[in-house]
Amino acid sequence: MLAHLIALDWGTTSLRAYKLAADGQVLEQRSLSSGIMQLPKAPRFIAGRECTDGFELAFDEACGDWLDAQPDLPVIACGMVGSAQGWREAAYRDTPANVANLGTSLQIVRSLRGVDVHIVPGVIQRSHLPNVMRGEETQVLGVLQTLSREAGTDLLIGLPGSHSKWVEVSDGCIVHFDTFMTGEVFAVLSEHSILGRTQQRGGSFDGEAFDRGVQVALSADGEIGVLSTLFSARSLGLTGELSATAQADYLSGLLLGHELSALASVQRRRRNSMHLPSIILIGNAQLCSRYSRALGACGFARVTLAEQATERGLWQLAVAAGLVAAMPSR
Amino acid sequence: MLAHLIALDWGTTSLRAYKLAADGQVLEQRSLSSGIMQLPKAPRFIAGRECTDGFELAFDEACGDWLDAQPDLPVIACGMVGSAQGWREAAYRDTPANVANLGTSLQIVRSLRGVDVHIVPGVIQRSHLPNVMRGEETQVLGVLQTLSREAGTDLLIGLPGSHSKWVEVSDGCIVHFDTFMTGEVFAVLSEHSILGRTQQRGGSFDGEAFDRGVQVALSADGEIGVLSTLFSARSLGLTGELSATAQADYLSGLLLGHELSALASVQRRRRNSMHLPSIILIGNAQLCSRYSRALGACGFARVTLAEQATERGLWQLAVAAGLVAAMPSR
Repeated sequence: MLAHLIALDWGTTSLRAYKLAADGQVLEQRSLSSGIMQLPKAPRFIAGRECTDGFELAFDEACGDWLDAQPDLPVIACGMVGSAQGWREAAYRDTPANVANLGTSLQIVRSLRGVDVHIVPGVIQRSHLPNVMRGEETQVLGVLQTLSREAGTDLLIGLPGSHSKWVEVSDGCIVHFDTFMTGEVFAVLSEHSILGRTQQRGGSFDGEAFDRGVQVALSADGEIGVLSTLFSARSLGLTGELSATAQADYLSGLLLGHELSALASVQRRRRNSMHLPSIILIGNAQLCSRYSRALGACGFARVTLAEQATERGLWQLAVAAGLVAAMPSR
Repeated sequence: MLAHLIALDWGTTSLRAYKLAADGQVLEQRSLSSGIMQLPKAPRFIAGRECTDGFELAFDEACGDWLDAQPDLPVIACGMVGSAQGWREAAYRDTPANVANLGTSLQIVRSLRGVDVHIVPGVIQRSHLPNVMRGEETQVLGVLQTLSREAGTDLLIGLPGSHSKWVEVSDGCIVHFDTFMTGEVFAVLSEHSILGRTQQRGGSFDGEAFDRGVQVALSADGEIGVLSTLFSARSLGLTGELSATAQADYLSGLLLGHELSALASVQRRRRNSMHLPSIILIGNAQLCSRYSRALGACGFARVTLAEQATERGLWQLAVAAGLVAAMPSR
């Protein structure tokens, strides 16, 4: 089947390439480790010239053969490729952001082979403490496309990761979002702090230890805050109450519990209601499974997982940009 | 003047040695980098034998010449030297802990030169989330010795550090304490997370940036918790609102603000009163100065600094252990 679009999800540590058909369906997809912080270095010939530019090399690896077969295919990309450290900076667009205003703000970089790569800008929320996202906006828009218009108001979209994002939407727009550095805090504490020294990792997921961590965050003991409860991942080990193999998942549950109990408080205050919104999660299946588990414990009763959010979002943005034609019957 | 006691404050990264007179006054003191995680390795002759044991080598460096001059001097040591990774483990003693019960629980290790080193045990609080300290108990007891008996109830003793401790005392006893991993969290985030990448460090203390961080933690924006507000150290940089040179002190203020606002809440709840206790700080002068500044902003109105807490505590414990005689006129 003839392709109509190449869509790239190009982050810090990975690059995913999708070849999409006329209706946006995925014909082929690839996953490379050529994120913008680990670009390829080995020179190769591109368009008859020896090339050493990492972005060109990664781009060629990801979809050079697709473009050889169909040289006129439009290309769209989202993620850190549009950051100041990326291939070409695509300046943040302010909230509220939707498919129409992001799709008409694509930044173009012309590749060595003459093909234009259209880069999706990130989104900035100029609140007192500003918030930014790059890549997540595309995923959120991909999910919104599959929802009815009315779904927005009672909905919160979660994107777990190194920096998890919680996105409030309304009328097809990203209107507000919060960031939590939970994933990165877990990683640096496990790799570089005293807590990691006694962790024995590599076993299967210890759900009991994870749930215990969540419950500590939600308990009266948790009110002293995460900077203090963290130490229990060590002190419970010293007293023999938490085994070395359980410590990493306990810490993970503890951090997610603090994140999600704070999220629940903030949501209740903003909505001026005890009622918590439905959650749609986007992201890595294992991480989403941890979040689902902790969300339930924190009072979020309705949690579903979104699929193909990135490729759907990139397709929608390409339609809005006029790179591909929308299917009449959608 | 003749010495009566050698007192060692032997932690993870440093070893301080004090030679004390009959009234506990410091005759001489030394500071070495031979903490238990960085013991000397170069072999040397001790008591006529070639020695390669790191603890023996460090002990000899710290006070070998003092013992050569007065071989019968008693030796007392506190800190991580008594941990499972130390020279000899001195099992934790439960709270409540005071000079009498710690002083009669010293663990003895006989050194190569035949001198006994008396190691002070750490203290454990077997609360639902347990807490432990090693070294800080000695400092707290050293401060209590200088206070009137009645001072305890309206008092909180703070020991800023990698893991700060906040200690409640009553009738000369350590009765309750909390730990915050604030210092270590600051260090690992600055050295290993994305927040460190844009920090430009090495300048003088930026009080304005520090105070701003404290205020963010105390503000309505801070209610979302530290896992989220952390990200502002990056996002304020991205929007040009926080310079690279200001980011480290902003982050420091933010973390201390979250620690101390949680501490204030917990203290008010435990005391069932809006009134906050007086604070006595023990520790590194620069760090205590940061804490004093943030404590004031968090509503702790009376903050004083303690001096010579460690050597006073070690002296008191040696008296209780019968290693030295108490001066009759104290």
